[in-house]
Amino acid sequence: MTNGDIFVGEMIGTAILILFGAGVCAAVTLRFSKARAAGWVVIAFGWGFGVLAGAYTAAPLSGGVLNPAVTFGLAVDTGVWDKVWVYLLGQITGAMIGAVLCYLTYYAQFQANVRQTGTTEGTADEPVPTLGIFSTIPEIRNPIANLITEILATIALALPLLALVGNNRHVEGIGIGQIAGQADGIYGSGIAILLVSLLVVGIGLSLGGPTGYAINPARDLGPRIIHTFLPIPNKGTSDWGYSWIPVVGPLIGGLLGGLIYNAAF
Amino acid sequence: MTNGDIFVGEMIGTAILILFGAGVCAAVTLRFSKARAAGWVVIAFGWGFGVLAGAYTAAPLSGGVLNPAVTFGLAVDTGVWDKVWVYLLGQITGAMIGAVLCYLTYYAQFQANVRQTGTTEGTADEPVPTLGIFSTIPEIRNPIANLITEILATIALALPLLALVGNNRHVEGIGIGQIAGQADGIYGSGIAILLVSLLVVGIGLSLGGPTGYAINPARDLGPRIIHTFLPIPNKGTSDWGYSWIPVVGPLIGGLLGGLIYNAAF
Amino acid sequence: MTNGDIFVGEMIGTAILILFGAGVCAAVTLRFSKARAAGWVVIAFGWGFGVLAGAYTAAPLSGGVLNPAVTFGLAVDTGVWDKVWVYLLGQITGAMIGAVLCYLTYYAQFQANVRQTGTTEGTADEPVPTLGIFSTIPEIRNPIANLITEILATIALALPLLALVGNNRHVEGIGIGQIAGQADGIYGSGIAILLVSLLVVGIGLSLGGPTGYAINPARDLGPRIIHTFLPIPNKGTSDWGYSWIPVVGPLIGGLLGGLIYNAAF
Amino acid sequence: MTNGDIFVGEMIGTAILILFGAGVCAAVTLRFSKARAAGWVVIAFGWGFGVLAGAYTAAPLSGGVLNPAVTFGLAVDTGVWDKVWVYLLGQITGAMIGAVLCYLTYYAQFQANVRQTGTTEGTADEPVPTLGIFSTIPEIRNPIANLITEILATIALALPLLALVGNNRHVEGIGIGQIAGQADGIYGSGIAILLVSLLVVGIGLSLGGPTGYAINPARDLGPRIIHTFLPIPNKGTSDWGYSWIPVVGPLIGGLLGGLIYNAAF
Repeated sequence: MTNGDIFVGEMIGTAILILFGAGVCAAVTLRFSKARAAGWVVIAFGWGFGVLAGAYTAAPLSGGVLNPAVTFGLAVDTGVWDKVWVYLLGQITGAMIGAVLCYLTYYAQFQANVRQTGTTEGTADEPVPTLGIFSTIPEIRNPIANLITEILATIALALPLLALVGNNRHVEGIGIGQIAGQADGIYGSGIAILLVSLLVVGIGLSLGGPTGYAINPARDLGPRIIHTFLPIPNKGTSDWGYSWIPVVGPLIGGLLGGLIYNAAF
Repeated sequence: MTNGDIFVGEMIGTAILILFGAGVCAAVTLRFSKARAAGWVVIAFGWGFGVLAGAYTAAPLSGGVLNPAVTFGLAVDTGVWDKVWVYLLGQITGAMIGAVLCYLTYYAQFQANVRQTGTTEGTADEPVPTLGIFSTIPEIRNPIANLITEILATIALALPLLALVGNNRHVEGIGIGQIAGQADGIYGSGIAILLVSLLVVGIGLSLGGPTGYAINPARDLGPRIIHTFLPIPNKGTSDWGYSWIPVVGPLIGGLLGGLIYNAAF
Repeated sequence: MTNGDIFVGEMIGTAILILFGAGVCAAVTLRFSKARAAGWVVIAFGWGFGVLAGAYTAAPLSGGVLNPAVTFGLAVDTGVWDKVWVYLLGQITGAMIGAVLCYLTYYAQFQANVRQTGTTEGTADEPVPTLGIFSTIPEIRNPIANLITEILATIALALPLLALVGNNRHVEGIGIGQIAGQADGIYGSGIAILLVSLLVVGIGLSLGGPTGYAINPARDLGPRIIHTFLPIPNKGTSDWGYSWIPVVGPLIGGLLGGLIYNAAF
Repeated sequence: MTNGDIFVGEMIGTAILILFGAGVCAAVTLRFSKARAAGWVVIAFGWGFGVLAGAYTAAPLSGGVLNPAVTFGLAVDTGVWDKVWVYLLGQITGAMIGAVLCYLTYYAQFQANVRQTGTTEGTADEPVPTLGIFSTIPEIRNPIANLITEILATIALALPLLALVGNNRHVEGIGIGQIAGQADGIYGSGIAILLVSLLVVGIGLSLGGPTGYAINPARDLGPRIIHTFLPIPNKGTSDWGYSWIPVVGPLIGGLLGGLIYNAAF
């Protein structure tokens, strides 16, 4: 498994993840979308099946981790840290690409956000803020509470995931670089990716209420960078003041998940 | 695997796919349907489980591809093109049959679309346009943007699908005609059809907002032909001006998906 | 596999199926239910996971068929008819038991249907008709159209199901009585029951709009008998005039599904 | 398999279950949650995927039972009772921890429940009662009817679960303590945990209407203890008068499920 394979796998996989995830937020948020206001169940399943799509695509190349927090949790668990930077580079690059692909998919809808008159909904004089399509926004702005929410939600992702893939890895005594060489990546069997994607659906349904569940630094940071530079009409703020929480929270959560798993199992 | 088996398998499988897919659009659109206005989540799962039903039915005969765009992606990937025309013929024939079956299933509802007085909803003097049950309609009519949406959504279908089934096929060095001879068709294992159907649910939830996600030329063209000729009361336009986009876009997306897969994997 | 095992398995399994299926209809219909008006997606998944629960329970004893129409389709397909009567007896008995269990589960809600004053919703002077909880009711009463809907929806169940379980059975050359002796029943592998339950979800979402998708004579007839005799307050009509359609339609559909499968595969 | 492993596994697994389950109730109940009023389908899938997350985490250590009622059903079925107290201790401890974790995840939302003025929703002068987030509340208070509902819903959980895991256990002749030593716990294969979690989704959709489906004494009692002592603003009553029903009902249901399973299978 070369560094190039890992980079390409994580980049393509994370791009697909963000295309689906940002896509479903665009689908329920933007005017002139058939899924407009389709509700939280659509958001949660859209992100979960984005994990399914991205992880199956990346699995043969890089194992399909797609998340710096999970990468850290696996590194803590296995003690193998030397490939971590390649994973992170692929993930953040892919997240930025995915955000651009979402913008292109919903291009006409983003442009229509600027229309002032003559729309099919009558007057459309109140453009929708677009940051929520790309990155997370807390419902109540409270740094300590928001950070705790992200830490706990990420532990709730990392701990079941590590237990799920743990038996296979412990038997083989393998680390991130090596597990990427397996046909099924970190997951031991193809069905595990389905289970992880349903786990992500569950986290969205149950723990996404306060902050929108970043639980993945690349998922939040990459699209926020793109949101800052893309010429979206009436895009509103990119809210960089909040941006450290969905990066730091998930990283702490991934590390804690790895430590708890090592202590308990 | 004879051409006859491939034709029959793709025809029956695509007919079932369209019966479910057009069916769920009828279910949420038409008056006097128990699922009326049941929302986008119902649409997306209805189409996804239509893939499940159709692909499992077709798998023993033809592999259960059911989609010209995926057929093209597989042909690019394997370099085997000589059975492609049989697959396409079965798919377009099946799509037309499925549209007729949907019309028969919702026959009384389609007829009730013409009623002017005395319905259980009081006055029903505004018939529902019926094309959206059979074929896709963009929310914003913008040929370039619509085409890009269909291309990207189809890549998002083809790339995970090819990665998912890729390991098995590469080991065997087989093409479309040959893979159809396997009991599990293109999928390598029965669980893969479930995963592809959930992938289609995800595409619907996340990427269906702008154009209604044809991502399959047969899915759009076959039912549009039927819509043109069926004597549906107050059926409205068949909108042939738009019809090339859900054909050309998915074909380009399938080809690009195959090329990206071959380059990266 | 004794007749006793088949009877008990089908009875318990169908009772669980109806407890879930009638239960979810009670959940969205009755006043003072937490799931009241929760929508069609809840109905479809509730029935589908009822198949999951019932079929897994019955699988070790009788194979978990739970449906006279599928029983007929399997008999046509395998040519084995001598155990059919035991399956049917267990299924209709179980369906009646399940209807009683649903009544007991929602006992307080059924009683509250009679309250005239002082409810938490203010005036409750309009009792909800209860037949729709137990049996199917068409949206538009049109015998020919309703019959065609039930026939087509049942073919859409039988054909994928037969294709799904077909490879295993053909290899073994076994009939209903014998397949019941396998640990996984008719399904060849445990995952197949999951797939069939998602298929039933899909039929509900896509084809349930006109008649409420009986697709199972026992599912409709058994609970209708119970509805006729149970002392439910303000229960309304049991509508025996319609009752032959959800019996005859699914039986024809199951037979046609078996014939098409035999001809094509 | 030591008592320590069983205790830790059940504690962590049940904590995760309650974090997801109480979390999804907080998500749809509390002001300033992105999932507010997202409906019953969200509740049912949130709890179901909480079972998925908790059981996969606990499986390598304790088998992932997470429910005293299921523990009793397994003990009746296998005749092995000596580890039952360890399972129960872990489950109730974990349920209390999970309730605290839910409180921390939604900390800002719980605090905002006290705000009297100046919220983003205008006047917020009517705090939401919070007990429903932690424990079950019947829609109609009727001890006999509520008890029967909980008994039947728990039988509907225990019977399919026992049938599902039964073949494997009977072959091995193993009890609770021993099955916990298997990598896949009580479930015989990894896929079974997915099936049980979908079964729990189905119970929620179909049988949760009258009482909110405790079907697990630890799930109701542990969080109720925490609700009593946590300093939640405007938390409302902890309703100890009802608390015996979601403990006694599920225990009876689990025992009856075990007895029926032993008699019929």
